[in-house]
Amino acid sequence: MPPLPASAVSGQHWTLDLSGCACPARLLRERNYLEEVCRAACQSVGLNVVGSLFHQFEPVGVTGVVLLAESHLSVHTWPDQSFVALDVYVCNHLNDNTAKGAALVGRMRELFQPAHSDDNQLSRRSIGAPLTL
Amino acid sequence: MPPLPASAVSGQHWTLDLSGCACPARLLRERNYLEEVCRAACQSVGLNVVGSLFHQFEPVGVTGVVLLAESHLSVHTWPDQSFVALDVYVCNHLNDNTAKGAALVGRMRELFQPAHSDDNQLSRRSIGAPLTL
Repeated sequence: MPPLPASAVSGQHWTLDLSGCACPARLLRERNYLEEVCRAACQSVGLNVVGSLFHQFEPVGVTGVVLLAESHLSVHTWPDQSFVALDVYVCNHLNDNTAKGAALVGRMRELFQPAHSDDNQLSRRSIGAPLTL
Repeated sequence: MPPLPASAVSGQHWTLDLSGCACPARLLRERNYLEEVCRAACQSVGLNVVGSLFHQFEPVGVTGVVLLAESHLSVHTWPDQSFVALDVYVCNHLNDNTAKGAALVGRMRELFQPAHSDDNQLSRRSIGAPLTL
């Protein structure tokens, strides 16, 4: 068994299940538009985008991810159900990015305008890492 | 407030924080190799890959995602810490994909060979969807 590092990686992971989204339909339906909005949202809270990939399903639906220097934003839309399953995961490798992650969560909720948001927040860390940065 | 659908989307989301990974170093360090292995792992359990994007950090580390028809696999590696933060999310839109997701979780754990795996499993669903398919 390899040695475990004494101190290591920690981060925060939010999952949001957004039902009854009242946003403009194109945000749920159009891959390019959703990708542009998601990248801009990450940048607006000071997170660093290193790439993105969005896929258009037929007849409807989009799945996509924005890769961040701090981890990722993922989005899955079901336009026919007005539902979005969304993740924000930020790691605290060099800085505590929790506030930026929380700001992104808030920004995404504003954009999708859900009637109901089922949220979870998970503290993630490697063995030896502190529970908070 | 828009009407909520009577029945809708459900899925399973696993998060794995893998410490003390004893796998060959290139699996944590080399973007192209990790991407190939992740895509193959998804396909090996019958999940449908619709795209992938992996980013190489300097000096070390890889962040990547495999987009699935069923949702996604995401991977973040810290080779200097022998740590991997991994997500498997599968939705049950047309079929119950829980068994395939669980198989992928097992396959990824085999590949990374962690000394310790800190796991969480979350049932996700839209309002009106059953807790299980």
